Amino acid sequence: MGENQKYKAVMPVQLRFSDFDRFGHVNNAVYFSYSDSAKCEYIYHVIPNLKIEKTGVVVVSLKADFQHEIHREEVIVVETAVTRIGRKSFTMMQRVIDPETQEVKCICESVLVFFDLENRQTIVIKPEWIEAMNEFEGRELRDL
Amino acid sequence: MGENQKYKAVMPVQLRFSDFDRFGHVNNAVYFSYSDSAKCEYIYHVIPNLKIEKTGVVVVSLKADFQHEIHREEVIVVETAVTRIGRKSFTMMQRVIDPETQEVKCICESVLVFFDLENRQTIVIKPEWIEAMNEFEGRELRDL
Amino acid sequence: MGENQKYKAVMPVQLRFSDFDRFGHVNNAVYFSYSDSAKCEYIYHVIPNLKIEKTGVVVVSLKADFQHEIHREEVIVVETAVTRIGRKSFTMMQRVIDPETQEVKCICESVLVFFDLENRQTIVIKPEWIEAMNEFEGRELRDL
Amino acid sequence: MGENQKYKAVMPVQLRFSDFDRFGHVNNAVYFSYSDSAKCEYIYHVIPNLKIEKTGVVVVSLKADFQHEIHREEVIVVETAVTRIGRKSFTMMQRVIDPETQEVKCICESVLVFFDLENRQTIVIKPEWIEAMNEFEGRELRDL
Repeated sequence: MGENQKYKAVMPVQLRFSDFDRFGHVNNAVYFSYSDSAKCEYIYHVIPNLKIEKTGVVVVSLKADFQHEIHREEVIVVETAVTRIGRKSFTMMQRVIDPETQEVKCICESVLVFFDLENRQTIVIKPEWIEAMNEFEGRELRDL
Repeated sequence: MGENQKYKAVMPVQLRFSDFDRFGHVNNAVYFSYSDSAKCEYIYHVIPNLKIEKTGVVVVSLKADFQHEIHREEVIVVETAVTRIGRKSFTMMQRVIDPETQEVKCICESVLVFFDLENRQTIVIKPEWIEAMNEFEGRELRDL
Repeated sequence: MGENQKYKAVMPVQLRFSDFDRFGHVNNAVYFSYSDSAKCEYIYHVIPNLKIEKTGVVVVSLKADFQHEIHREEVIVVETAVTRIGRKSFTMMQRVIDPETQEVKCICESVLVFFDLENRQTIVIKPEWIEAMNEFEGRELRDL
Repeated sequence: MGENQKYKAVMPVQLRFSDFDRFGHVNNAVYFSYSDSAKCEYIYHVIPNLKIEKTGVVVVSLKADFQHEIHREEVIVVETAVTRIGRKSFTMMQRVIDPETQEVKCICESVLVFFDLENRQTIVIKPEWIEAMNEFEGRELRDL
């Protein structure tokens, strides 16, 4: 999945000592804290007027392929693109890569929803959010 | 996925204060540390003669559906079953549920490999490991 | 520190695979998520009428002695006692131990404050909270 | 503590979404994963010939003062200095600060030992390690 995707959003990851498990590589579960942070940063930059105290962004499903280990001293970035926008959900494709070698560590596809934190329920994606994501990605993402 | 699966392995989860994010529910990435621990416990109990210092168990891909939030004070368990054994990889199906209400929080399907930690490469699944998993699950898991 | 302290609050800890670092023992930073959870559980049980959405409990300083490593398969508990109550701060003493061998893994002394989450400021400890902690510990904790 | 200390080692910290707890600030326990990573980076740069597969660096005790909350969008760095070298242990002083405002978030003093990972025991600090730390800090650290 995601092989021919273009990624405009790139977030470097600072590896932490505690990311490494007893097998000496970054623990699988930690990849998701990388991709989570990249998702937040994407939303924050692309939809700056979203009030994160009122509207959460929540992952409803994901698929991940772990292709290579991450070792100490590697430089790692997460690439993120929104690839589909539906009525209430949207899809993000992400790659965790070593940009020097272009080795792909993990490919991750997530379906997300916007979430009203007060009423604890999902909300319809607002036209201005769609427009902001379309503009950033340079194409029509709306899946009708 | 995984709706009609029977689960013989059940691991209670002790929620930690640090599992909760600013949205007031368990952070998505933390679900994977729950399912990781349940995978380890499964392997440890079902294949007790596996030397974890020599042979790692590594997730190569996963799919997860997050169906409900986990809140403070909930009782949570992870159910785990091996559902397929191939030549070098095998599949685990897992459910994170509240056993009191039977509410499913997350369903997760993972493909894993055994990994020689010294040579850093995957290994063919040994017949005695297959037998141990077959016996625990009470059926033939080998996918030929 | 804390050698002759009696501990009435005891919380078992479920070790997670991700708690272990590349040195093969529980990572130091993880001890604090254990002691944090034990602090929450203490407050939650001893002061049940505290509204955690309104009033946070925040650590302002701590001292920790790490005496032994925690290994896989060990049973671990955190013992917690409130040992001093001031006007705005109070002190908790904690031990992380293996209850089977009585080996002390870590001793931790924390100074905490109650924190008004709306106004983002510390608050004077209420008489009913002092009373609840005194009653649980079976002695006068107020440090005048 | 540590008020007049000079810090030559400065590590920027990339905050992660998962660092924030339900109180909306960085969780206390996470500060230690910041300071841990800064300790590793210090050792790695100042004593480059240390083989981390053979010789671990382990915290035996620490004291921390949490002075201010860390909020989203803040820039954070960890400053680290070795301030004492004994026969088998040494002391690191660290400050977690916002370098823009110079607000001190946390001051942390740690006593550490070098640890032979094979024999699982502490080792005497080697003269070349002392020399490397003396040279980096620009003064005699040996505490005789």
